[in-house]
Order: sequence, then C-alpha cells, then structure tokens
Amino acid sequence: MSGNTFGTLFSVTSFGESHGPAIGCVVDGCPPGLAISEADIQADLDRRKPGTSRHVTQRREPDAVEILSGVFAGRTTGAPIALLIRNQDQRSKDYSNLPETFRPGHADYVYTQKYGFRDHRGGGRSSARETAVRVAAGAIARKWLAERYGVRICGWMSQLGPIEIPFVATREIDGNAFFAPNAAIIPQLEEYMDVLRKSGDSVGAKITVTATGVPPGWGEPVYGRLDAEIAYAMMGINAVKGVEIGAGFASVSQKGSEHGDEMTPQGFLGNHAGGVLGGISSGQDLVVNLAIKPTSSIRLPRRSVTLEGQPVVVATHGRHDPCVGIRATPIAEAMLALVLIDQALRHRAQCADVVCPTPVIPAHPVG
Amino acid sequence: MSGNTFGTLFSVTSFGESHGPAIGCVVDGCPPGLAISEADIQADLDRRKPGTSRHVTQRREPDAVEILSGVFAGRTTGAPIALLIRNQDQRSKDYSNLPETFRPGHADYVYTQKYGFRDHRGGGRSSARETAVRVAAGAIARKWLAERYGVRICGWMSQLGPIEIPFVATREIDGNAFFAPNAAIIPQLEEYMDVLRKSGDSVGAKITVTATGVPPGWGEPVYGRLDAEIAYAMMGINAVKGVEIGAGFASVSQKGSEHGDEMTPQGFLGNHAGGVLGGISSGQDLVVNLAIKPTSSIRLPRRSVTLEGQPVVVATHGRHDPCVGIRATPIAEAMLALVLIDQALRHRAQCADVVCPTPVIPAHPVG
Amino acid sequence: MSGNTFGTLFSVTSFGESHGPAIGCVVDGCPPGLAISEADIQADLDRRKPGTSRHVTQRREPDAVEILSGVFAGRTTGAPIALLIRNQDQRSKDYSNLPETFRPGHADYVYTQKYGFRDHRGGGRSSARETAVRVAAGAIARKWLAERYGVRICGWMSQLGPIEIPFVATREIDGNAFFAPNAAIIPQLEEYMDVLRKSGDSVGAKITVTATGVPPGWGEPVYGRLDAEIAYAMMGINAVKGVEIGAGFASVSQKGSEHGDEMTPQGFLGNHAGGVLGGISSGQDLVVNLAIKPTSSIRLPRRSVTLEGQPVVVATHGRHDPCVGIRATPIAEAMLALVLIDQALRHRAQCADVVCPTPVIPAHPVG
Amino acid sequence: MSGNTFGTLFSVTSFGESHGPAIGCVVDGCPPGLAISEADIQADLDRRKPGTSRHVTQRREPDAVEILSGVFAGRTTGAPIALLIRNQDQRSKDYSNLPETFRPGHADYVYTQKYGFRDHRGGGRSSARETAVRVAAGAIARKWLAERYGVRICGWMSQLGPIEIPFVATREIDGNAFFAPNAAIIPQLEEYMDVLRKSGDSVGAKITVTATGVPPGWGEPVYGRLDAEIAYAMMGINAVKGVEIGAGFASVSQKGSEHGDEMTPQGFLGNHAGGVLGGISSGQDLVVNLAIKPTSSIRLPRRSVTLEGQPVVVATHGRHDPCVGIRATPIAEAMLALVLIDQALRHRAQCADVVCPTPVIPAHPVG
Repeated sequence: MSGNTFGTLFSVTSFGESHGPAIGCVVDGCPPGLAISEADIQADLDRRKPGTSRHVTQRREPDAVEILSGVFAGRTTGAPIALLIRNQDQRSKDYSNLPETFRPGHADYVYTQKYGFRDHRGGGRSSARETAVRVAAGAIARKWLAERYGVRICGWMSQLGPIEIPFVATREIDGNAFFAPNAAIIPQLEEYMDVLRKSGDSVGAKITVTATGVPPGWGEPVYGRLDAEIAYAMMGINAVKGVEIGAGFASVSQKGSEHGDEMTPQGFLGNHAGGVLGGISSGQDLVVNLAIKPTSSIRLPRRSVTLEGQPVVVATHGRHDPCVGIRATPIAEAMLALVLIDQALRHRAQCADVVCPTPVIPAHPVG
Repeated sequence: MSGNTFGTLFSVTSFGESHGPAIGCVVDGCPPGLAISEADIQADLDRRKPGTSRHVTQRREPDAVEILSGVFAGRTTGAPIALLIRNQDQRSKDYSNLPETFRPGHADYVYTQKYGFRDHRGGGRSSARETAVRVAAGAIARKWLAERYGVRICGWMSQLGPIEIPFVATREIDGNAFFAPNAAIIPQLEEYMDVLRKSGDSVGAKITVTATGVPPGWGEPVYGRLDAEIAYAMMGINAVKGVEIGAGFASVSQKGSEHGDEMTPQGFLGNHAGGVLGGISSGQDLVVNLAIKPTSSIRLPRRSVTLEGQPVVVATHGRHDPCVGIRATPIAEAMLALVLIDQALRHRAQCADVVCPTPVIPAHPVG
Repeated sequence: MSGNTFGTLFSVTSFGESHGPAIGCVVDGCPPGLAISEADIQADLDRRKPGTSRHVTQRREPDAVEILSGVFAGRTTGAPIALLIRNQDQRSKDYSNLPETFRPGHADYVYTQKYGFRDHRGGGRSSARETAVRVAAGAIARKWLAERYGVRICGWMSQLGPIEIPFVATREIDGNAFFAPNAAIIPQLEEYMDVLRKSGDSVGAKITVTATGVPPGWGEPVYGRLDAEIAYAMMGINAVKGVEIGAGFASVSQKGSEHGDEMTPQGFLGNHAGGVLGGISSGQDLVVNLAIKPTSSIRLPRRSVTLEGQPVVVATHGRHDPCVGIRATPIAEAMLALVLIDQALRHRAQCADVVCPTPVIPAHPVG
Repeated sequence: MSGNTFGTLFSVTSFGESHGPAIGCVVDGCPPGLAISEADIQADLDRRKPGTSRHVTQRREPDAVEILSGVFAGRTTGAPIALLIRNQDQRSKDYSNLPETFRPGHADYVYTQKYGFRDHRGGGRSSARETAVRVAAGAIARKWLAERYGVRICGWMSQLGPIEIPFVATREIDGNAFFAPNAAIIPQLEEYMDVLRKSGDSVGAKITVTATGVPPGWGEPVYGRLDAEIAYAMMGINAVKGVEIGAGFASVSQKGSEHGDEMTPQGFLGNHAGGVLGGISSGQDLVVNLAIKPTSSIRLPRRSVTLEGQPVVVATHGRHDPCVGIRATPIAEAMLALVLIDQALRHRAQCADVVCPTPVIPAHPVG
C-alpha cells in the first residue's frame, strides 16, 4: 500500500511537513450528497488543538482547515475533497542545534539511513502535526457513518502512566484536557503531570476507542479482516506500540468457557471479542485499546550519536508534550472512522444485494 | 486491499477451503534466481502439521505441497509461483449437526449476516487450515531474506494460559511440541494441557516472534509504517486479539528516560522500541508479541442461536486444538517473513541509489 | 498494480505456464449468491478451444475447468473462487532447438534481459494459453452482469488482414470459426487463410467487442475512467497493438459538429463516443476495436540472435495460429466483462444511495 | 485503482476543480536526492499554458506552481511532494446558462447520472485544466528518468484534422504553437485553423509521443504490461478515443514477415513493435499514437436535453479550444513519463540483483 495513502475505496492521501507552509490531504471516494462544511471539520480539529491546557505543548496554532475541492452547494459531489491547513507557528530556532545529531527514540537516525539525508526541521515528516490531517479526514468519515448507519465513535484515556482510569460516563470525556471519562480522578492526574513536567521526563498512556451501531458483516475474511485493518490503522499512529481488540492480551490466560461470547435471541452475553469475529463485525460494540509510549523528547540528558557516528549528549528543549497520549484520543477516533467507512463501502460493493435470512443478534448491553 | 491478497510487491493470493479439494496460493513478485524446491517449502510446513503430538488436533494430513509454476531448473523465474496443497483428511460428518446453528466465538453468524448464507463445512473459509498456505508462501520469503540480507526469523511460545515461559535458548524451541524455548518447563506445560483436555475447555497463549539482521531503513513513514504492516499481518492471523512491538503495553507505564533506547557508537543501549522507530526499521532486532485467544470450539455446552434465531445449546465434538497457540509459531514466523520481503522490495524500489553518509549503529547485544 | 492481478473489487489473479502442469486463477470479490457451475464456465472456454478448425493451431486440449473453492450448493459464497485447468497436450520437443536462440517478435529476448534467464518451453509465461484463464474468469463476470443488470457482451472479427468484414447479424457469429458476423464472406476468408498457411506467413486482424445494457454512471473521472480501464484490459491481451473506443482514430479528421452525439428526449442521435463520455458510461452501447498483430511464429526464416549475441536464422515449426486474431474474440469479450463487473462494484460502493433526478436518455437504436 | 491516483510506486494523487481556488497533486514515492525546483516544473507547465497563440483558448493563467513539501535544500527527501497551482482567471458567467442543460459530448449528463447532481462550473472535475497537474508531476518524473537512465521523451502533432504532418526534425517542434515537427507546413495549418474558428466548429488531431533510452526489461507480463499501462495512461487523457503502439492499427493488414522486427548483433532491423514485446520494453524507441476527438464545445447550435429531460438547443460560447489536440503534446509526454518511472521502480524492486548474460541489442537507427 502506498506509504501516504490510507484506505482503498474511501482513501486519504496526506501531504506536508510540520515546518513547511502547509499540511493537507486529498479524500477520495466519499459518497456524494453528504452535507459537509469547514465548520464540521473544524469542530473535530479543535478538540485536538495544541495549547489548550498546561499539560500539552505550548505551540499555538489555529489549525484552520480550508476545503479546496469536492464540495458544491454544501454537499460532497463525489469528486475528491482536498483539505488544506496552513502552518502558522513554527519556531525553527528550537531545532537549530539538531542537524548534526540524532535524537534518541526519534526517526532521525532511521530517516538518514533510508533516504541518505533528512529534513531536520521539527521532525519533518514524522512530526505528530501530520495527524491533524487524519482528524480532518476522519471528520468527514464520521459524519457519513453517523448519518448513513447511526455509527457513533467514542474514545477516551483509560490509563495515564501507572494510574488506571475507571470508566464513569462518556459525558465526562470532553470536560477535561485528558479525555478521561472520569471527572473525579482529574486532580490526581493533574498532580501527576505537574510532577512529571518538573522532572523533565515523560510517560506513556493507554487509549480506548469504541464504535457502536456498526452492523454485522463489515470486513473480509483471511487478509482484509476488520481487526487487521484496525490494527494497521492504530499501530500507524505515532508513538503507538501495541493494539488489542476486546479482551486483547487478557485472552492469553482466559479459558474458552469464559472468553467465548454466548448468544441468545435477546442478545450476546458478553463481548470479549470486542465486536469482531472471524475478521468481520458482529454487530457488537467495537472495543480497541492502544498502548502509547512515553514521548522521546525529554529535557533529561540522553546519550546519542552525531551524523558522523561520534558520541554526544542530547537534551531536548522547546515545546513538547510530556505525554503524547493526552492528545491521542481524537486521532484514534479519526482512524477508526477511516477504517469503518472504507469497510462499509467495500461491504456494499460486494454484498449490496444480500438479503440475510437470519435475525440480527442484539449487542451485549454494556458496550 | 483485496481481502485475499497480502502484500504489494511480493504478494500472496490464497484460495481454497478446509473441506474443498485443495488449498493454495499464488506468490507474485518474487525476485528471479532464488533457488527453491518443494522440499524447502515442505520443511516449514512439516513444523506446522497437525497430528504431531497429543496436544494438538488429531487430524492427519500429509500437507504435501506442489509447485505448479514460476520455478524452472530449480530457480524462481520471476513469474508467479503457484503452490497447491491437496486436502486429504476431511471428516464432514463431524460437522453434520451444524448447518442450522451458529457456533459461539466462530464466524458462522457473521458470515451469514455478510453473505446471506455460508458454507458450513469445517469452518469453510475461516478455518485455520488456510494458514498452511501462509507458511508455504512464507518459506519462499524466508529463504530470500536469509540469502540476500542474512535475516533470520525465529518465534516461540512465551506464555501458555497462565504459565509464563522464561526464554532459555533458541535451540530448545524445536525440541518440543509447544515451540517453547525452554526444555525444563515442558513437563509443567504437558500436565496443564492434559488437565485442560479432560475438562473439555481451552486456553489462550502468547507468541513472540523476532527477526535479526534486518538492515535499517525498511518501512515508509506515515501510513506504510513497518510496525503498522506487522500489526496488520499478525492481527490477521486467526484467533489473534492483540499485537505489540517491543515493550508494547508495558510502555504505558514507562517513563521516557527508561523507554527511550540510547545510542552510542558501539551500539544501542536497549531495545524497548522492538526494532522499529518512526515506522522504519532501526537495524535492531524486531520483537513482536501476539495474544492468541482460547479456541472457540470446546466440548463444554454453550448457549447459541439457530439460523432462525431460536435458542439452542451447542457442544462441539470432533478434532480440535485445545490451544490454538501451540501451532501458531510457524504461522507468525511466516507472516513476519511476508511483511519483511515486501518492505525490502519497496525500499529498494525507492532507495536503491541511496548512499548513506552515516555509519550503522550496531544492535543491542541481547535481542 | 500487481502484474498478475486484474481488477480491484472483482479481481482475478492468474497463475501457470503453458508447459507446466496446470493454469488457473483466483477470482476474488464475486458477489455471493450467483448461480455458477463448471458447465457455465466450460461453455465459454469451448468457444476458445484450439483444434476446432483447420485454421487454428492443431494442439488438442480439453481445457476442462475445475472449481476448487468459493461455490457451495451451486452458488457463489462470496469467498474466493479458484479455477484450475490442467494442461494435457504439451509437445516440448517442438521447442527443443530454442533455448539458445531468441525468436523474433516474441518475448524471449526481453524476458532474458529482465529476469536474467527464462523458461523457454512453449513461450513460458507469455504464451497465449494463459488467456484460457481470462475466459474462465470472464464467464463468471458475464453471468453476473447479465443477471443483475441485463448487460450483454458480444464480439466479432471485423477485419481479417486486408479483408474488411461488413457486419450482417450477431446470429451469424457462432456459425463459423472466425467469429465473423457475416456468413456470406466466409468462403473468401477461408480461401485467404489456405493461401496464407501454405505460404508459411501470418496476418493480423481487427476485433470489435460491444456491450449493451450498461447503465449510465460506471467509471470514475480523471484516472479511473472506464475507457482507460478498457484500454488497459485490451492492450494487455497478447498481440494487441491498438485500442479504440467508438469512432476511435476516425475522430482525428472528424469535425465536432459530426462527432458530437446530440441528445433528444427520445434518445441519443449517434454513438461516435462509443458509450463513454468523460470516462463514464453514458448508457449507450460500448463499442471497442482492437488491432491484433500478425503471429510472430512463422515458418519463413527470420534473422535473430543467440543468447551469446551471435547471428542466427530461425524458422519456427510446430503448431501455431497463422492468425491469432481468429481466436481472440472470446478473450476480448471476457476482458470487457472483467472491466465492467469491477466498475459496477466500484460504482455501487460509492454511489449506492444516489437517486438521480434526471431521466435516462435511451441509446441510439443501431449499437 | 483509485480514480484519482495514478501509479503504484511513483504515484500521483490529484485534486482540485477548474473553478475552485486551486488544483494540485501529491507525488509519492519519488526517489530521494533528485535536484528539483519550482523552475524545473514551471518550464514544462509553460509549454502547456493557454493564451500563447490565437489558435488556443484565450483564458490567461499564470499557472504558477508552488512546492509545498517533499523538497529540502533543493533535493527531494523521499517524502511526498505536494504541488499547488492557484486558479486565477475564472469567468463563471460564461457558464451561467448551463446548470439546467447538458452540453452534448461532455460529461454533464453522465456525472448527473452517477452522482445525482454536478458542479456545473467550467466542467467541474472533467475540465482539461486538471491536466496542468499531470504536466507538473510529469516534470519530476522526466528529470529523474533523464538523469538516472538517460531516457528522453518527445512528442509532437502528427496530424491535424485531415492534414497529415510529415516528420522533419525534433528541433522544429517548439518553434510553433502546434508542436508540429515541421516548420514548412505551419502556414497550411494556420490557414486551416482560421477557417475552422470562423466556422464555429472544431476538429480532432493525432499526437505521437516517443521515448528513447528506455532499457530493456521494464514492464511485467500478463496484466502489468508496459503497453497496457501506456494505453491506460493515454486513454485517460481527456478527449482521447484511441491509442496504438508501434504499427498499431496498421498491424491488422500486415504479414508476420513484414511486421516482425528481425534482430542482428548490430541491432534490430525494424520497430513495428514500437518498443514493447510481450509487454516488456525491448530497448527500442517507444512509439505511441493518440487519437484526439474534436472539441465538444462549439458555437454551432446542437440539440440536447435539460435536467428535466426536455429538448433544448445549446450553443456554447466562451473561451474554448477549436482543437484540443493543439495543447495535448505536453500532457502525453507527462503521462508517458509517469508510466515509465513507475515501471522503472517496479523493475528494480523485483530485479535489482539480476545480472543479464545476454548483450543488449541496439535499437533500430530511425526511432
């Protein structure tokens, strides 16, 4: 698959670097007739925006999206939709001592090995700012999924470093900077982050993202499995080191009598499968967890090498997220939307004429 | 991506069902000149074969592979290579009471929802026997990677149900039916399995698969990331519910000062990254873990529904693996080979002329 | 696009060489529920079969197709369909003097340049026998297109060497070995061929293939245009050197007032466009012409070079078609079917919900 | 293949409409290290620019290209290259009477059938202005092909309406507005065009495009054939109705003894094959002809229908090319470059290690 295009029927081709004039993407294959505006997309982007709390990077960006094509009279035409986001706030001097050294944990070294040289400004192509594009494209996908199928996508932080965050309610997610579904635990998280920031270190996080209302039948056996596509999408997000569906790694020690979700006419009796069976959606809630590694750019001095292979010590200053996971939730939601719309279109390409003889088994009540 | 083709430059298109006359695949894009024979492929298939111990399914299959095309005078010609494996041992009567019911935890229900009906014999397309094809194709990939780049792929079982298996040595892996890298623990594993089999239940497992000798530079930023392709390949294996790279889910609670792998001219000082940075191989060992769920086919009675939506109780008899994970290691190795050869070819397509100015940093001694 | 897979949603991956044990393909993405049998496919294959008249190669092949997967209880399941055709009649000795020389006009030289060596038996991968696979896959596509949309595909020979063949009626096509839509001209064609065969030379042909009943809207603007996909499919047939749609090369000297097909509520007033406008089907008959070059294997001595680059004279004996075009019609029909089904599925993926406000303009009466 | 992405390894995803704010593309997969600037690309664009003679449309556009990403310190980084071209000169009022009617010969009707409605301004997505993007992307491809392999691409007009243009010399091509390789015939062409413009009608043209220096071995047998990819690229250009390679449609009446290009150690003795044998480049000049239909927008009144299906007469005013073919040469050259670079990268992915034992046969002297 092309390294810069995601999806086959609803595809997103992104472009742009963190310190170039703009970032953007081309969304191709969107069904015509969907009402979409810059405001719709901006709403999702604003959730992701830097500078919205003291816990995230202090770079100020309006992240204003511009629709260049594919929309006429407020509706998608079926032609490709180009989205552009101009970069406003770049501080190249923060990167001025970097061209000769490789920052540990970053892609500097591997880019140089692969391409022979690299654009060192702001992490170039590997920067997390590129993810703004995914959120923009995901906004279009989410709207279509919601209107056409009633699919709702919702994500939250389920663990910050060592602190597990019990799920209380979805309505609490947007009330704090962490996307935590638990207002009561916020003071504890904030205190933890204040200590962390002062120490100059960073920590990881776990994100949970779900989708309700996905009908059974999306995904294709063997290689085009829905769970495989989800894993591909999520592991492709910067800083993700693990992906699990449903019970995930807890399945390792589970018995079949416990893990297998029994079925009754009134509904499934459990959802260890996380909404995917045999690579195809079961109609139950999709449940996905992502493991996000601690930020590699920390103020503590770290050993590294220069371009010539000489030892050096690197301390990274500038504006960085002490926990990348804090802003990851909208990105994970967007990627799930992109996977689902592509699967929806693939399913109807092959199976639009199918009349299923069997009733749909309702999802297990607690998602 | 097509649901039955894996890979873009070195691609594998598989076909065949468990209870049809044959299974097989077409391998396209293999570089010409590779010495390959049916014996080379058969060696890898035999590691996977059912009936080799009392701990796995008692179905007896020779799994004899036949090369139909693409090889001339003992070497690949560059033309597509068709592999065929005839099915010999099918006991359809074991599935005789199943056409009207959905087995919980299997794809029966979702297939019917997607396609309107299904081939109920032996799990049809979703059967694990299809994975023999992946092992066959993977054998070709492994040979090329070893000869061209010195890449070695090695996998093992790192946990059986609740029992963690400490790594002792790779040479112990092929000495037992579990692919456990630890001869001393085998009696404990066998005892556990005997109890499990008598109980009629099943359990999950964790598999670790590694690759050494991968040069830095494989993988493409943003969407075609090496780790994303690995996640896609592994999550696409039957029964896999989680994939992690390097420290994986342990990264969640790690600090950046601990997780980030420092670099010195003598080598990396750690490998929490698992061999991938920014989506590109770093030259360090690739380290991947898979979570495999417990087998869904168990003898214990389970509640389910019929095709008409009526409640029913299902007890699955016949020949099944009480732990699917026991035979998963060769499949995971094969999938890693398929990912790596595709990435190798993609890298040389774009970067064959690159001369890298920077020395390669040696891998951390303990993979 | 993979060199051995045609199509994206309804895809065909072929394998096998002319002198190997078998040829075949995997058809992926076929909608479920289509009634298909080996007899359905065999009917199309038999039209193509060698040895059916004195004007074609005298190789005798039953070309018996076997369905290995993807069909259950007489209907497609939605799983991939593997088709196998065993090769029975190979005369390798006819190729015994060839390993060291390159036959002019064949792919021998270019294969060696590309791959470093080649499988010289029977033309290896470049042999025209591989096209039997396309006809087999095309049979499935044609059945679906006919049943689902009422699309009918029909081709014929419109020129044999210098002899133009006026179109009389479709019912005359299957009454002769040439697929000529004109019974009266057959004696003239047969006489021409008898003289040609005695001379040891060969000649080209022009094939016309049409599709009626294609609804408007298939094809995607800019790069995925229906006419571009048709050109790709047809130019990909062995020995084709030109493809034109509608008026084709006659358009060069036409005025816009003549070429442009006017529209009235009762229908189009012409079809110079050949059924495609702006890359999308117009609802008019698709009309495509193919130019087929004369067979390269002739008995007349031809100058060539050996593997070492030494001059040599080659006279090709054995069983060859003096006019490849005579058997090309079923192949062109099959390729058109494969293009159309892929386009049909792509269109419904993106546009299944579209309600068109504008009435369909009927096609011009004479296709 | 995605309707808006061309190519697999060197891919171009385009976006933008004629009357939107901008058009552009993302070029992905370009090898790193290529020296490229906006000036390099601008040079190719300026050849295509409207308003450069009285024989083409009088729309004035600077067509200034801006590189948004993928280039650092004057060289490609290997990251995707985004190109943007702002639209400056749009006269929407020229299209003011069109929303309710379908212009005959244009895509208006089929777009509405496919998508349910359309963006009627300036032909929306189907406008020929989108081709400026292809020329921009092609400029990058051409530079790499020239520097890496010495490939030179050259196209010209070989026929204007009924007037055949004998080839005199390549140096004469850029000396006139027609791209005719024949200075002496220009007065005749200009006179013809003056009469045509006054009549309000339009006419077609034939373009020839060639590539020299292509090494043998590019292209993949069966489906990924070089000639098929060329046909796909060329038929995908607006207004193209036919594509032929080498002798093309003349092959129909040729004998094998005449068409087959004999080989000697000193070189090929002819090039009826047009540089492609068995779908793979032979090392001879690639020779391709395109048939371009007459412009559909003419001042003469034409019968058509309205959105509601009512009869109407349409006379198209505004600024249009009386012969689209006059500006087609740079577009055909760009498309050939895009095909060739993709094929070059595919070839080296699979065959980078091949050492060919056989000497290259020199091309026939007259391309």
